[in-house]
Amino acid sequence: MSSTPTSPYARLPEPPYYVVAFSSSRTEGDRGYDTMADAMVELASQQPGFLGVESARGIDGFGITNSYWKDEDSIRAWKTVVSHAAAQKLGRERWYEDYQVRIARVERAYGFER
Amino acid sequence: MSSTPTSPYARLPEPPYYVVAFSSSRTEGDRGYDTMADAMVELASQQPGFLGVESARGIDGFGITNSYWKDEDSIRAWKTVVSHAAAQKLGRERWYEDYQVRIARVERAYGFER
Repeated sequence: MSSTPTSPYARLPEPPYYVVAFSSSRTEGDRGYDTMADAMVELASQQPGFLGVESARGIDGFGITNSYWKDEDSIRAWKTVVSHAAAQKLGRERWYEDYQVRIARVERAYGFER
Repeated sequence: MSSTPTSPYARLPEPPYYVVAFSSSRTEGDRGYDTMADAMVELASQQPGFLGVESARGIDGFGITNSYWKDEDSIRAWKTVVSHAAAQKLGRERWYEDYQVRIARVERAYGFER
C-alpha cells in the first residue's frame, strides 16, 4: 500500500498518472464484502503500476473508491487478474446494486495540510 | 444538477471530460459545513461546463467528492467564483484537517446496473 496505516490518503508521485474512479451502491448486508474488499486492496497493492487507493462510503451505502495507477496498461492488467475477475463477478451478482467506472489521466494535483 | 434527486450518480456524457477528485478529512463538528456544502453543490451546478458530482463520506470523517466538468477552463473558472473562493478559505480555516485534489481527463467509462 502507498498509504500509511494511519492515513486514508494515497501518497502519489507527481502527475501524470491515472485514476480509476469507482462509484458504487452496495446491496444490503455484508455477505463477505468487507473481507473481499480488504483482500482486493491487498492484491491490488502488489500489482505492477499500483500507486495507491482512497475510499469512502456513507451510511446510505453509496461509496467512491479512487485507485491510482502508473498507466493504462497497469489498469488493464489488474482488471484481468484472476482473483480480481472473480471478485468483479461476485460484485455484480451479490454486492453492488450498480456501479460506474471512469478512467482518467491525472494532469495536475495539489493539497492542503494543517 | 445532472443527478436526479433519487440517484447519487452523475449522469455524464460520453468521454472525454474532466474530473476533479477531491479527498478530504473533516474536522470535528458541523460548524456550518453541511449548509455550505449544499450551497456549493447548488452553485457549482449553475456554472458553465458543470456536468455532475458524486460524493461519499464515511463515519471516520474521510470523504471523496468527484465533480465532473466539460474541460479545464470550466474547472479553473469555478475555482475563482467569489463565493466558492470564500468557501475554500473557510474550508482551510475551519472544516478540513487536510485535503488532496487531483484534476484528471476522463478517457473512458463504463458501468453496471441491476
